[in-house]
Amino acid sequence: MEDLINYLNEIKFTTKEVKTQKGAYLIAIGKGEFDIRAIGFMDGVSDIHVVSDDYKLVSGKWKVDPTEIDLGDEVIIKQGDLALMAGPCSIEGEEQIINTVQHLKDAGIRIMRGGVYKPRSSPYSFRGMGIEGLRLWHDIARQNGIKIISEVMQVSQIDEMYDYIDIFQVGARNTQNYNLLDELGKVDKPVMIKRGISGTIDELLYSAEYVFSGGNEKLLLCERGIRTYEKASRNTFDINAIPILKEKSHLPVIADPSHGIGIRDHVPPIALASVLAGADGIIYEAHQYPRKAFSDGQQTLNFNQSLDLANNLRQVMKMRLEML
Amino acid sequence: MEDLINYLNEIKFTTKEVKTQKGAYLIAIGKGEFDIRAIGFMDGVSDIHVVSDDYKLVSGKWKVDPTEIDLGDEVIIKQGDLALMAGPCSIEGEEQIINTVQHLKDAGIRIMRGGVYKPRSSPYSFRGMGIEGLRLWHDIARQNGIKIISEVMQVSQIDEMYDYIDIFQVGARNTQNYNLLDELGKVDKPVMIKRGISGTIDELLYSAEYVFSGGNEKLLLCERGIRTYEKASRNTFDINAIPILKEKSHLPVIADPSHGIGIRDHVPPIALASVLAGADGIIYEAHQYPRKAFSDGQQTLNFNQSLDLANNLRQVMKMRLEML
Amino acid sequence: MEDLINYLNEIKFTTKEVKTQKGAYLIAIGKGEFDIRAIGFMDGVSDIHVVSDDYKLVSGKWKVDPTEIDLGDEVIIKQGDLALMAGPCSIEGEEQIINTVQHLKDAGIRIMRGGVYKPRSSPYSFRGMGIEGLRLWHDIARQNGIKIISEVMQVSQIDEMYDYIDIFQVGARNTQNYNLLDELGKVDKPVMIKRGISGTIDELLYSAEYVFSGGNEKLLLCERGIRTYEKASRNTFDINAIPILKEKSHLPVIADPSHGIGIRDHVPPIALASVLAGADGIIYEAHQYPRKAFSDGQQTLNFNQSLDLANNLRQVMKMRLEML
Amino acid sequence: MEDLINYLNEIKFTTKEVKTQKGAYLIAIGKGEFDIRAIGFMDGVSDIHVVSDDYKLVSGKWKVDPTEIDLGDEVIIKQGDLALMAGPCSIEGEEQIINTVQHLKDAGIRIMRGGVYKPRSSPYSFRGMGIEGLRLWHDIARQNGIKIISEVMQVSQIDEMYDYIDIFQVGARNTQNYNLLDELGKVDKPVMIKRGISGTIDELLYSAEYVFSGGNEKLLLCERGIRTYEKASRNTFDINAIPILKEKSHLPVIADPSHGIGIRDHVPPIALASVLAGADGIIYEAHQYPRKAFSDGQQTLNFNQSLDLANNLRQVMKMRLEML
Repeated sequence: MEDLINYLNEIKFTTKEVKTQKGAYLIAIGKGEFDIRAIGFMDGVSDIHVVSDDYKLVSGKWKVDPTEIDLGDEVIIKQGDLALMAGPCSIEGEEQIINTVQHLKDAGIRIMRGGVYKPRSSPYSFRGMGIEGLRLWHDIARQNGIKIISEVMQVSQIDEMYDYIDIFQVGARNTQNYNLLDELGKVDKPVMIKRGISGTIDELLYSAEYVFSGGNEKLLLCERGIRTYEKASRNTFDINAIPILKEKSHLPVIADPSHGIGIRDHVPPIALASVLAGADGIIYEAHQYPRKAFSDGQQTLNFNQSLDLANNLRQVMKMRLEML
Repeated sequence: MEDLINYLNEIKFTTKEVKTQKGAYLIAIGKGEFDIRAIGFMDGVSDIHVVSDDYKLVSGKWKVDPTEIDLGDEVIIKQGDLALMAGPCSIEGEEQIINTVQHLKDAGIRIMRGGVYKPRSSPYSFRGMGIEGLRLWHDIARQNGIKIISEVMQVSQIDEMYDYIDIFQVGARNTQNYNLLDELGKVDKPVMIKRGISGTIDELLYSAEYVFSGGNEKLLLCERGIRTYEKASRNTFDINAIPILKEKSHLPVIADPSHGIGIRDHVPPIALASVLAGADGIIYEAHQYPRKAFSDGQQTLNFNQSLDLANNLRQVMKMRLEML
Repeated sequence: MEDLINYLNEIKFTTKEVKTQKGAYLIAIGKGEFDIRAIGFMDGVSDIHVVSDDYKLVSGKWKVDPTEIDLGDEVIIKQGDLALMAGPCSIEGEEQIINTVQHLKDAGIRIMRGGVYKPRSSPYSFRGMGIEGLRLWHDIARQNGIKIISEVMQVSQIDEMYDYIDIFQVGARNTQNYNLLDELGKVDKPVMIKRGISGTIDELLYSAEYVFSGGNEKLLLCERGIRTYEKASRNTFDINAIPILKEKSHLPVIADPSHGIGIRDHVPPIALASVLAGADGIIYEAHQYPRKAFSDGQQTLNFNQSLDLANNLRQVMKMRLEML
Repeated sequence: MEDLINYLNEIKFTTKEVKTQKGAYLIAIGKGEFDIRAIGFMDGVSDIHVVSDDYKLVSGKWKVDPTEIDLGDEVIIKQGDLALMAGPCSIEGEEQIINTVQHLKDAGIRIMRGGVYKPRSSPYSFRGMGIEGLRLWHDIARQNGIKIISEVMQVSQIDEMYDYIDIFQVGARNTQNYNLLDELGKVDKPVMIKRGISGTIDELLYSAEYVFSGGNEKLLLCERGIRTYEKASRNTFDINAIPILKEKSHLPVIADPSHGIGIRDHVPPIALASVLAGADGIIYEAHQYPRKAFSDGQQTLNFNQSLDLANNLRQVMKMRLEML
């Protein structure tokens, strides 16, 4: 390895070693020419790829096989399958958790979403149940075979949440919180990164590159709508981003229609559409009594709507696989 | 009628009479209170609706039945059916027309799109074959049972094009060309209005209101993507607009994925997604040799891709109808 | 000329002859190489410029001297001077015109703005006094040495308005109405083109190229704010566009702070700022009783505010000239 | 105090106590009616304000006197004065610091900007000299009477940087990093918050409310351009935000024309314009050799340009004060 790095440095390439759960990578960045065979014959080199994209490790140019995220207990997120994640905006208490978990089991959904740390524009709004809420949730979910995805807002919460969580979610306001991304690179748990409130597709890939180059390649990307001049919907769901991300990267792409349109009755059509656009999973908000939800009630499905949606999503996915 | 207008003016409502192909309407705009029964008993009044939207005639608040557009020869655009429109960006010549018409027949598509007047940013670009191209196209299309949709750019072209066209298309740069809309209100042919390059959903409905209040209620709305900061795609296809327009208005909604994403390989997933979002029709660009097309080649499907897409679109539509 | 065109066509350049009020130009567009001296020696060639921009005639790359617009009676719009244009959004009647003209004379402003054809989102809004309003306005303005700028919305209005107007204004909804631009290219009167509602700087220059290449080089460009997600102001005034347009083009640049921010009390600071950003003129809305104005009252200055602003604008312009 | 809180809770108001460097505040949020005199007579109440804005403490509705930020050594940022802050994008080393400090002294500028922690889209870019760079900078600056503003990217850096800094800067990617804002609320040093990359004006005020309600009222707001579809400039500098922020809040408003337009030669006109729009200060990038700067060179002034700009800015400020 040292020889290789020396050689690369000599020909004016900067190098960065990356060790992840799955392998060891050496990123070399530069403009010079080099003899690809000479490098290929060096000790310890198993494969070489030239990646013209500015992001490297998350690029689809070197890794042709789509990334799979194995959460255990046969819950696997992967291309060709449709991962469903549903649950409330905020975790509110035991009864709500129990009801939601039961609903997910009825609907055959294995991953529950919910916030215990809530980013709120106003400092006077409800900011989540915190770690106590997460522990409670974890107990109930584990007993029922349900996996947990929840937002981490700062570095100090990573350790706190680690034992109680299956996927760390990076929210749209933190997509470019590089310190948080750096730290999540050191963790051996999957991370789903939401696109920034007005982030570009490339910026989302760069943010994933931060985590990957920090050592964690268990990554998911999430399209959740962008900010535009149009105010008839909460955000403008950028459905174009789904096929574009799938082409540019090997990472799974999850669609969030709840934030993408922000209007309860229109969440299902956008969810279904996302499947045909190529999404590998759908994350949406569901609550027993949406009108009583602590937050985001106007875009949250009730359990009947959620049950219908889950069934329709699977049917559409089946058709998509047959159509190819 | 005069009595009614006098009464309404007395209570400070402004009125506008609208006579269309299908009926006579009296729009009364004001803030005062009135006795709805008193008006209902007046001569010639068959129905009264209170419409809180700023647009009135195109609103779904008074007209519950979705509008159907009958082009003759059993080509009808209506909710519950999927209207397909395909063809080149620009009409280029006889051979191209013949090939395209043959392809449409193979694919079971009854409406052909194509531009003979092209709005181009640069005055030095190809600006279309003009009326000669349209006549040629019309001859070939008519012999083959194919209907024609084409863009009209200015008032003086309306008469010129009238005999050779089945649907007038108002392009994204002309969505707020009110004089053009006024004149199209006087015509007894369907008009499809594209959303402005950065037009809001409401502005699109207002533009339709112009045509309807001018006397023409044969209207279609078209979502074709909006301008945002994201440059990975040509436009940001606003799939949210489809269910929102369907809710707000009784007019058919057509999706244009070609302009919506602008990348050939990604047109089919966006087209399919649009069907599940609720579109009543899809318009897309197809050409025998996309790379040789005079314009928009990079977003144009070849005939094989088009054939596959048409079949898949119908299959998805079938599923959508079954899912409801 | 014919020889030249033949030669250029031979080397695969397309050519377009342009005759304007001030000169004759031959635009040649192509990618081949050519011997610049060979062309220079041909009969009738006085100067050759290579312009890499996609727009040619409006580019600052060939014409170093800034364009001056002479309206007669010593009213000249030119770099180094500050052209002021003020008046109501809509022309409303004789009294309003007389009051405004008197105000302009008091303030030393020589150009009056006002709409007689109004583009309105809703077909039920006030759409202007039309040509009768313009004639009335023209009579009063002429007697008082005031020049007139007013919006032309369609081709048929050009002739109608021609005798009563000093500058044709193309509104933000018509920036890409190419037929209108083509026709304005045939007119011997100045044309001010407003940037599109979400038009790019380059698109504004292309629109000017349409008019210039049609034969009319009496052109002004106007920055009036663009549409963004920010709703605290009517538009986002893109002050960056002023130095960028001044660098890219030789045409005068006018700033419209009234539409740019849309809030009366904040119009003066944005107007003053525009002068330091490099504007050659300011157009703003003023009315004796802004609250009674038929349209745009919330962004219209009263005459006292307008008087102060005009004085301050001149003072700032004086400082700008001294600072260079 | 307890009585007051009990009373407010009884009438269904939620309360939050805020103790800052300058005073103690009780925020009560609710919709009920109350007897303002009854509260006014309670012990310890010196003043009561009803603030309809969603942000309270940063609103101009209760605090009429503009906030002043005293950095010591007679460096005070306040309305009616023009605070200048200049320096490189990144701190690069001793020589660069010495040169820049000397330049600032020549130009009469008392506050130096510079990054030691750099947020970069790509993990492979230069990420700053870190705390060592800050210490070095601090030594040289202190010896020369120069104050320091620098970006803090995460909670753990606050303590680290505290002794070496005069103003903490929150960058555009961290405007809604609420944990960081919470922690900065506990600090007794001024904080300048930059507007988010596509943040609204209201969101900027909410972010300031976080810091203030955390206990720190030494706050500055910074307009630095927003992300739009226009790509001729790096960002769209939203000059409208300056008068709007000055109207809505009592906090000083600083303009950052370097990021606002991103093109060296156009930074001075935008800076000068910002003063007339009402800015209380200007922050811009300056470097001895902009082309050699580690980052942002294309928008960085050289020292000659900076010297001219500083002089012109003061001259324009003088004129603004005289014009009022």
